[in-house]
Amino acid sequence: MQFDLNADLGEGFGVWRLGDDDALLDVVTSANVACGFHAGDPVTMRRVCAAAAQRGVAIGAQVGYRDLAGFGRRRIDMDPDELAADVLYQLGALEACARAAGTRVRYVKPHGALYNTAADDAEQAGAVASAVTAFDPSLPLLALPGSAMEHAASAAGLPFVPEAFADRAYSPAGRLVPRAERGAVIEDPYEVVARAAAFALHHRVTAIDGTVLPVLARSLCVHGDTPGAVYLATEIRRTLLDAGVTLTPFAP
Amino acid sequence: MQFDLNADLGEGFGVWRLGDDDALLDVVTSANVACGFHAGDPVTMRRVCAAAAQRGVAIGAQVGYRDLAGFGRRRIDMDPDELAADVLYQLGALEACARAAGTRVRYVKPHGALYNTAADDAEQAGAVASAVTAFDPSLPLLALPGSAMEHAASAAGLPFVPEAFADRAYSPAGRLVPRAERGAVIEDPYEVVARAAAFALHHRVTAIDGTVLPVLARSLCVHGDTPGAVYLATEIRRTLLDAGVTLTPFAP
Amino acid sequence: MQFDLNADLGEGFGVWRLGDDDALLDVVTSANVACGFHAGDPVTMRRVCAAAAQRGVAIGAQVGYRDLAGFGRRRIDMDPDELAADVLYQLGALEACARAAGTRVRYVKPHGALYNTAADDAEQAGAVASAVTAFDPSLPLLALPGSAMEHAASAAGLPFVPEAFADRAYSPAGRLVPRAERGAVIEDPYEVVARAAAFALHHRVTAIDGTVLPVLARSLCVHGDTPGAVYLATEIRRTLLDAGVTLTPFAP
Amino acid sequence: MQFDLNADLGEGFGVWRLGDDDALLDVVTSANVACGFHAGDPVTMRRVCAAAAQRGVAIGAQVGYRDLAGFGRRRIDMDPDELAADVLYQLGALEACARAAGTRVRYVKPHGALYNTAADDAEQAGAVASAVTAFDPSLPLLALPGSAMEHAASAAGLPFVPEAFADRAYSPAGRLVPRAERGAVIEDPYEVVARAAAFALHHRVTAIDGTVLPVLARSLCVHGDTPGAVYLATEIRRTLLDAGVTLTPFAP
Repeated sequence: MQFDLNADLGEGFGVWRLGDDDALLDVVTSANVACGFHAGDPVTMRRVCAAAAQRGVAIGAQVGYRDLAGFGRRRIDMDPDELAADVLYQLGALEACARAAGTRVRYVKPHGALYNTAADDAEQAGAVASAVTAFDPSLPLLALPGSAMEHAASAAGLPFVPEAFADRAYSPAGRLVPRAERGAVIEDPYEVVARAAAFALHHRVTAIDGTVLPVLARSLCVHGDTPGAVYLATEIRRTLLDAGVTLTPFAP
Repeated sequence: MQFDLNADLGEGFGVWRLGDDDALLDVVTSANVACGFHAGDPVTMRRVCAAAAQRGVAIGAQVGYRDLAGFGRRRIDMDPDELAADVLYQLGALEACARAAGTRVRYVKPHGALYNTAADDAEQAGAVASAVTAFDPSLPLLALPGSAMEHAASAAGLPFVPEAFADRAYSPAGRLVPRAERGAVIEDPYEVVARAAAFALHHRVTAIDGTVLPVLARSLCVHGDTPGAVYLATEIRRTLLDAGVTLTPFAP
Repeated sequence: MQFDLNADLGEGFGVWRLGDDDALLDVVTSANVACGFHAGDPVTMRRVCAAAAQRGVAIGAQVGYRDLAGFGRRRIDMDPDELAADVLYQLGALEACARAAGTRVRYVKPHGALYNTAADDAEQAGAVASAVTAFDPSLPLLALPGSAMEHAASAAGLPFVPEAFADRAYSPAGRLVPRAERGAVIEDPYEVVARAAAFALHHRVTAIDGTVLPVLARSLCVHGDTPGAVYLATEIRRTLLDAGVTLTPFAP
Repeated sequence: MQFDLNADLGEGFGVWRLGDDDALLDVVTSANVACGFHAGDPVTMRRVCAAAAQRGVAIGAQVGYRDLAGFGRRRIDMDPDELAADVLYQLGALEACARAAGTRVRYVKPHGALYNTAADDAEQAGAVASAVTAFDPSLPLLALPGSAMEHAASAAGLPFVPEAFADRAYSPAGRLVPRAERGAVIEDPYEVVARAAAFALHHRVTAIDGTVLPVLARSLCVHGDTPGAVYLATEIRRTLLDAGVTLTPFAP
């Protein structure tokens, strides 16, 4: 049984920090490294790539909208050609940092509003896929199963890796319950750990209405932007290891 | 007799244009493509890379300070680690655009205030060289002969390609006369063409005091930001070809 | 009969220019000056404010999304508080430039995608109106009659000035025909001038289906980003003056 | 005996925070609010202005270089006209936020590398002074006594308010010992509090060589970017109040 833990890293900018990169790198097997458009400056990118390489953590490109002021959390109605070029640019920039650390970018995961938009919007999902194809058609995309991003990856012939969220409620249709709705975020740490185990061991989740759904995730997204989050991620890691799960990057 | 003509290209940003990229690509053999920090947006970078690849023009990374408002023309007192990371980031971003166009970045030329600073400041020159080394130690640096940039390239074991300027006066010591001084810029187009020929054919230039100096340039920098400049560059090209010079990229 | 001509000005950034500010300032009575978020750097803002003040042209704040790379032409899904703060910031920045030129900001006009979004989206229109109210509740908003922007201005108790477009087709309902549709842009300069006169003299326009509509515009938006556009704007000005219209800023 | 405590506030950007604004606003009498060029987004600016206004803390414009990536800590060799325009722009932007909070900007303090550059460089200091003069010639500049900034303020007829630093060593000539030198920063909190009291009560400081120097500061700069710093600032405040000093903004 192999499983992967991924988290967003390198999300500071200049003097500003966000999350505890070093602590998270001891927990995850895949690091979604911010590429400078919504977060992440070149010095931080190099540092995180070097630290990930040292620990055998796979480096993924956390690509986002060009929006430092909004941290990439605001949808931008971009022309697909503009979006594809922006994604390609970010892929190359991170690849250079990874190369300088003796490794390379091994997957791509859209960030924030781009993640959400690419889950539903075929045009923007297609733009992301076309950029990855132009850069390296062997790179997997990491995103929500059943999303427009998955369809665009398939259409482009790109590998796709489905991920799951242990702290988010699922609808009976297998989609994430929107954050604005009641019960969308699972607050109880014990339940979060239990759901993580259910994803990794039984490939299933209990939806918000009690239905048990199959979820064929290969990776679990964990968070690290608060001390409690790092602790929770550590607990998930320990629980999975104790259950005999092998934690290893999904990327070849 | 082989010689190279290089020019700055892709120096627009978003809706703003600067210079006539297509016209210049028909003149030069090497294109210094802006990488997004002082000019150059990802759509433009892809477009220029594709157009250069189509014509067999070599693509170089025109790296600069992170300063869109100042077009990279203002010296920034940066920590060498910050500068090296910024240069590495730009190299990777352009490489992705070149790769998408079926080619790759073949040399590096600092832009504007970074060019001038790296001509005299060993620390910033060293930062540029260290970034190129980390990215690809086979990439040549294109800059002023005898500059701190040349010394830093040599020290890092990087190939160095010296360039000349046909429209700039030289001091008897072989340095460019600062723009603020009288006679620093050669205005007469006939003289500019003649000086270009002297560089390419005789490897020499007449300094501002009349001394004839040897200049072992392998490339000549031409400008294209005005219609007159494109015409002048075209005249230089025609004159060199008529004199039997083979115009070809210096980069392997 | 009083009428106003407004145009977008100061839309360069740093080394990049867009349009001929000086030529347009001889044509218009109101200048929508870009405030630095989608275009417009502080040096340009000061220069345009000084030139406008010298000619008695009223200065308006052309506020936009924070998006230099997209020239403010891409809708951003912003929180209203963020948008209101961004608009307030831009108003103050331009006011300082106007004050240094011995005058002040006399109206506000949203730009590009913000103009279009505020025409239909009550939330973003409300954010713009709330920023203007917080800054100076006597400042008029210049925008499309019947738009969400007009409703938000009314709700906030702000003066509203309706504008017309001589080069855009109108639907029978009095809205602009979307640019993507056939016939949306009037190309014939004679027709554009005739429509300008119809707005100013008869307060009406012929819609795309031939219906004659009343349009109570107090200002006409003219363009200046091409040499032909400046010439056309000049023709509109001459025609209106010849017909006895007094061209004067709408703003007190 | 009246004295003022000033601190840098509002130095986050978007999602990123720096320092504890609310805690510091309970300590200081003057708030140097970042204006968006090196730090500070419009939402934060409005929030800090409102919180300062509520507590009767005077709002000052913490103007800096346009350099988010470097937090304004890197000197930029700018043309004085560019720098003056950038400072004017920032003043207006903050004034709008202050006005929306029912108050106004009451002084100006350069930040980071601009503070240091304006201490020695007459050209950049003159640019700052010219911007303040163009905006409001009654606004005081807060900076180091004896600096180029003080001379430029005097030459421009601007009020000047000298400040002191309790945690920095002074040379016998009354300048700050550069941070790179041994003993430049006073680490012992008791000594820092004692020096603060010496400035406020006795208008003097003991220089690094033991000389006792007169220092006619009207304000003391305190820091708040660490929990310890807020505690130290609070101790300084308590000690001065206990000694009978009236803490009150210097700005009218």
